[in-house]
Amino acid sequence: MTIHPNAELVRRYWSTAEARDWEGFAALLHPDVVYEAHQTRERVTGRDPYVRFNAEFPGDWHVTVVRVLADDSGGFAWTSFAVDGEEMTGLHVLTVVDGLVTKVDDFWPEPYDPPPGRDHLVERW
Amino acid sequence: MTIHPNAELVRRYWSTAEARDWEGFAALLHPDVVYEAHQTRERVTGRDPYVRFNAEFPGDWHVTVVRVLADDSGGFAWTSFAVDGEEMTGLHVLTVVDGLVTKVDDFWPEPYDPPPGRDHLVERW
Repeated sequence: MTIHPNAELVRRYWSTAEARDWEGFAALLHPDVVYEAHQTRERVTGRDPYVRFNAEFPGDWHVTVVRVLADDSGGFAWTSFAVDGEEMTGLHVLTVVDGLVTKVDDFWPEPYDPPPGRDHLVERW
Repeated sequence: MTIHPNAELVRRYWSTAEARDWEGFAALLHPDVVYEAHQTRERVTGRDPYVRFNAEFPGDWHVTVVRVLADDSGGFAWTSFAVDGEEMTGLHVLTVVDGLVTKVDDFWPEPYDPPPGRDHLVERW
Protein backbone atom coordinates (compact mmCIF):
# COMPACT_ATOMS: atom_id res chain seq x y z
CA MET A 1 0.00 0.00 0.00
CA THR A 2 1.50 3.34 -1.01
CA ILE A 3 1.01 6.31 1.29
CA HIS A 4 -1.09 9.01 -0.35
CA PRO A 5 0.42 12.53 -0.12
CA ASN A 6 -2.81 13.68 1.52
CA ALA A 7 -2.32 11.05 4.26
CA GLU A 8 1.08 12.58 4.95
CA LEU A 9 -0.46 16.05 4.92
CA VAL A 10 -3.12 15.03 7.47
CA ARG A 11 -0.50 13.52 9.76
CA ARG A 12 1.66 16.62 9.44
CA TYR A 13 -1.37 18.81 10.23
CA TRP A 14 -1.69 17.02 13.57
CA SER A 15 2.02 16.62 14.30
CA THR A 16 2.63 20.34 13.83
CA ALA A 17 -0.41 21.15 16.00
CA GLU A 18 0.80 18.77 18.71
CA ALA A 19 4.27 20.41 18.54
CA ARG A 20 2.71 23.92 18.63
CA ASP A 21 4.68 24.51 15.43
CA TRP A 22 2.22 27.12 14.17
CA GLU A 23 4.47 28.17 11.31
CA GLY A 24 4.59 24.60 10.03
CA PHE A 25 0.85 24.26 10.62
CA ALA A 26 0.10 27.48 8.70
CA ALA A 27 2.21 26.29 5.77
CA LEU A 28 -0.33 23.49 5.16
CA LEU A 29 -3.29 25.86 4.91
CA HIS A 30 -4.74 27.75 1.96
CA PRO A 31 -4.94 31.52 2.72
CA ASP A 32 -8.74 31.30 2.39
CA VAL A 33 -9.15 28.11 4.44
CA VAL A 34 -12.58 27.68 6.04
CA TYR A 35 -13.07 25.76 9.29
CA GLU A 36 -16.52 24.55 10.29
CA ALA A 37 -17.48 22.93 13.57
CA HIS A 38 -20.78 21.34 12.64
CA GLN A 39 -22.13 20.65 16.11
CA THR A 40 -21.79 24.25 17.30
CA ARG A 41 -22.25 25.78 13.83
CA GLU A 42 -19.05 27.79 14.26
CA ARG A 43 -17.07 28.99 11.26
CA VAL A 44 -13.56 30.45 11.08
CA THR A 45 -12.44 31.99 7.79
CA GLY A 46 -8.85 32.60 6.71
CA ARG A 47 -5.45 31.15 7.57
CA ASP A 48 -4.38 33.61 10.27
CA PRO A 49 -7.62 33.47 12.29
CA TYR A 50 -7.64 29.68 11.98
CA VAL A 51 -4.05 29.36 13.23
CA ARG A 52 -4.94 31.61 16.18
CA PHE A 53 -8.09 29.56 16.82
CA ASN A 54 -5.87 26.51 17.32
CA ALA A 55 -2.98 28.28 19.06
CA GLU A 56 -5.40 29.84 21.57
CA PHE A 57 -7.23 26.60 22.32
CA PRO A 58 -7.14 26.43 26.11
CA GLY A 59 -5.66 23.71 28.29
CA ASP A 60 -2.61 21.45 28.02
CA TRP A 61 -4.10 19.42 25.20
CA HIS A 62 -2.42 16.53 23.40
CA VAL A 63 -3.59 14.85 20.27
CA THR A 64 -2.95 11.32 19.00
CA VAL A 65 -3.92 10.19 15.52
CA VAL A 66 -5.96 6.96 15.66
CA ARG A 67 -6.73 6.48 11.97
CA VAL A 68 -6.22 8.25 8.65
CA LEU A 69 -7.88 7.73 5.28
CA ALA A 70 -6.85 9.77 2.28
CA ASP A 71 -7.61 10.14 -1.39
CA ASP A 72 -7.22 12.81 -4.07
CA SER A 73 -10.00 14.92 -2.49
CA GLY A 74 -8.33 15.17 0.91
CA GLY A 75 -7.96 13.28 4.14
CA PHE A 76 -9.97 12.02 7.08
CA ALA A 77 -8.47 11.81 10.56
CA TRP A 78 -9.83 10.15 13.67
CA THR A 79 -8.01 11.53 16.68
CA SER A 80 -7.90 11.10 20.41
CA PHE A 81 -7.69 14.40 22.23
CA ALA A 82 -6.52 14.50 25.85
CA VAL A 83 -7.03 17.72 27.80
CA ASP A 84 -6.86 18.16 31.58
CA GLY A 85 -7.36 14.43 32.20
CA GLU A 86 -10.34 14.15 29.85
CA GLU A 87 -10.26 12.09 26.67
CA MET A 88 -12.25 13.20 23.62
CA THR A 89 -12.68 11.81 20.13
CA GLY A 90 -12.14 14.16 17.20
CA LEU A 91 -13.18 13.44 13.62
CA HIS A 92 -11.81 15.72 10.94
CA VAL A 93 -12.42 15.91 7.21
CA LEU A 94 -9.77 17.93 5.39
CA THR A 95 -10.38 19.03 1.82
CA VAL A 96 -7.11 19.50 -0.06
CA VAL A 97 -6.60 21.42 -3.31
CA ASP A 98 -3.13 21.64 -4.88
CA GLY A 99 -1.49 20.42 -1.67
CA LEU A 100 -3.16 22.96 0.65
CA VAL A 101 -6.04 22.52 3.08
CA THR A 102 -9.01 24.58 1.84
CA LYS A 103 -11.68 23.27 4.26
CA VAL A 104 -11.76 21.61 7.65
CA ASP A 105 -14.99 19.92 8.78
CA ASP A 106 -14.75 19.10 12.46
CA PHE A 107 -16.79 16.82 14.73
CA TRP A 108 -16.46 15.98 18.42
CA PRO A 109 -18.91 13.14 19.13
CA GLU A 110 -19.70 12.80 22.83
CA PRO A 111 -20.79 9.73 24.79
CA TYR A 112 -24.52 9.09 25.24
CA ASP A 113 -26.75 6.30 26.51
CA PRO A 114 -27.79 3.64 24.01
CA PRO A 115 -31.44 3.54 22.92
CA PRO A 116 -33.51 0.65 24.27
CA GLY A 117 -34.65 -2.37 22.27
CA ARG A 118 -31.47 -3.72 20.79
CA ASP A 119 -29.92 -5.58 23.72
CA HIS A 120 -30.59 -8.88 21.89
CA LEU A 121 -28.01 -7.92 19.25
CA VAL A 122 -25.59 -5.74 21.19
CA GLU A 123 -22.94 -6.12 23.87
CA ARG A 124 -21.47 -3.14 25.74
CA TRP A 125 -17.79 -2.50 26.35
CA MET B 1 -9.61 11.36 -10.33
CA THR B 2 -10.32 7.62 -10.51
CA ILE B 3 -12.96 6.19 -8.20
CA HIS B 4 -11.47 3.80 -5.67
CA PRO B 5 -13.30 0.44 -5.43
CA ASN B 6 -13.74 1.10 -1.70
CA ALA B 7 -15.55 4.36 -2.51
CA GLU B 8 -17.99 2.36 -4.60
CA LEU B 9 -18.34 -0.17 -1.79
CA VAL B 10 -19.14 2.55 0.75
CA ARG B 11 -21.76 4.07 -1.54
CA ARG B 12 -23.27 0.65 -2.16
CA TYR B 13 -23.35 -0.02 1.59
CA TRP B 14 -25.57 3.05 2.00
CA SER B 15 -27.63 2.63 -1.16
CA THR B 16 -28.56 -0.95 -0.23
CA ALA B 17 -29.41 0.16 3.33
CA GLU B 18 -31.56 3.01 1.99
CA ALA B 19 -33.30 0.53 -0.35
CA ARG B 20 -33.77 -1.99 2.52
CA ASP B 21 -31.99 -4.44 0.20
CA TRP B 22 -30.65 -6.48 3.12
CA GLU B 23 -29.40 -9.26 0.85
CA GLY B 24 -27.32 -6.78 -1.13
CA PHE B 25 -26.18 -5.15 2.11
CA ALA B 26 -25.16 -8.50 3.62
CA ALA B 27 -23.15 -9.36 0.50
CA LEU B 28 -20.76 -6.49 1.33
CA LEU B 29 -20.00 -7.77 4.83
CA HIS B 30 -17.42 -10.21 6.09
CA PRO B 31 -19.07 -13.06 8.08
CA ASP B 32 -17.16 -11.91 11.18
CA VAL B 33 -17.83 -8.19 10.72
CA VAL B 34 -17.68 -6.15 13.93
CA TYR B 35 -19.73 -2.98 14.40
CA GLU B 36 -18.81 -0.53 17.14
CA ALA B 37 -20.79 2.56 18.16
CA HIS B 38 -18.15 4.47 20.08
CA GLN B 39 -20.40 6.93 21.89
CA THR B 40 -22.61 4.26 23.45
CA ARG B 41 -19.86 1.61 23.58
CA GLU B 42 -22.13 -0.86 21.78
CA ARG B 43 -20.72 -3.74 19.77
CA VAL B 44 -22.43 -6.10 17.31
CA THR B 45 -20.50 -9.13 16.11
CA GLY B 46 -21.23 -11.16 12.98
CA ARG B 47 -22.95 -10.53 9.66
CA ASP B 48 -26.44 -11.81 10.52
CA PRO B 49 -26.80 -9.88 13.80
CA TYR B 50 -25.43 -6.77 12.12
CA VAL B 51 -27.88 -6.99 9.21
CA ARG B 52 -30.73 -7.40 11.75
CA PHE B 53 -29.39 -4.46 13.76
CA ASN B 54 -29.84 -2.28 10.67
CA ALA B 55 -33.05 -3.89 9.41
CA GLU B 56 -34.67 -3.46 12.85
CA PHE B 57 -33.63 0.17 13.23
CA PRO B 58 -36.89 1.91 14.12
CA GLY B 59 -38.59 4.73 12.25
CA ASP B 60 -38.97 5.67 8.59
CA TRP B 61 -35.33 6.64 8.25
CA HIS B 62 -33.64 7.86 5.08
CA VAL B 63 -29.94 8.30 4.53
CA THR B 64 -28.09 10.61 2.13
CA VAL B 65 -24.36 10.36 1.55
CA VAL B 66 -22.71 13.77 1.97
CA ARG B 67 -19.06 12.84 1.43
CA VAL B 68 -16.92 9.76 0.86
CA LEU B 69 -13.17 9.27 1.17
CA ALA B 70 -11.60 5.93 0.33
CA ASP B 71 -8.22 4.28 0.16
CA ASP B 72 -6.85 0.74 0.24
CA SER B 73 -7.67 0.40 3.96
CA GLY B 74 -11.38 1.14 3.54
CA GLY B 75 -13.76 4.04 3.28
CA PHE B 76 -15.11 6.95 5.28
CA ALA B 77 -18.67 8.19 4.83
CA TRP B 78 -20.32 11.33 6.14
CA THR B 79 -24.07 10.89 5.96
CA SER B 80 -27.21 12.83 6.69
CA PHE B 81 -29.83 10.71 8.41
CA ALA B 82 -33.45 11.82 8.42
CA VAL B 83 -35.86 10.06 10.75
CA ASP B 84 -39.33 11.24 11.82
CA GLY B 85 -38.57 14.84 10.81
CA GLU B 86 -35.24 14.93 12.63
CA GLU B 87 -31.91 15.34 10.83
CA MET B 88 -28.79 13.65 12.21
CA THR B 89 -25.19 13.49 11.04
CA GLY B 90 -23.59 10.07 10.80
CA LEU B 91 -19.85 9.46 10.42
CA HIS B 92 -18.77 5.97 9.49
CA VAL B 93 -15.34 4.39 9.08
CA LEU B 94 -15.46 1.12 7.17
CA THR B 95 -12.43 -1.17 7.20
CA VAL B 96 -12.29 -3.33 4.08
CA VAL B 97 -10.27 -6.51 3.57
CA ASP B 98 -10.40 -8.37 0.25
CA GLY B 99 -13.49 -6.43 -0.81
CA LEU B 100 -15.54 -7.14 2.32
CA VAL B 101 -16.32 -4.89 5.28
CA THR B 102 -14.64 -6.31 8.39
CA LYS B 103 -15.23 -3.39 10.77
CA VAL B 104 -17.65 -0.50 11.07
CA ASP B 105 -16.80 2.37 13.44
CA ASP B 106 -19.83 4.57 13.88
CA PHE B 107 -20.30 8.09 15.26
CA TRP B 108 -23.38 10.28 15.63
CA PRO B 109 -22.17 13.73 16.72
CA GLU B 110 -24.93 15.82 18.26
CA PRO B 111 -25.28 19.62 18.43
CA TYR B 112 -23.95 21.44 21.49
CA ASP B 113 -23.32 25.03 22.55
CA PRO B 114 -19.95 26.54 21.66
CA PRO B 115 -17.49 27.21 24.49
CA PRO B 116 -16.96 30.87 25.40
CA GLY B 117 -13.88 32.93 24.59
CA ARG B 118 -13.54 32.54 20.86
CA ASP B 119 -16.14 34.95 19.48
CA HIS B 120 -13.33 37.16 18.16
CA LEU B 121 -12.40 34.46 15.63
CA VAL B 122 -15.70 32.72 15.00
CA GLU B 123 -19.00 33.42 13.27
CA ARG B 124 -22.10 31.25 13.77
CA TRP B 125 -24.29 29.87 11.02
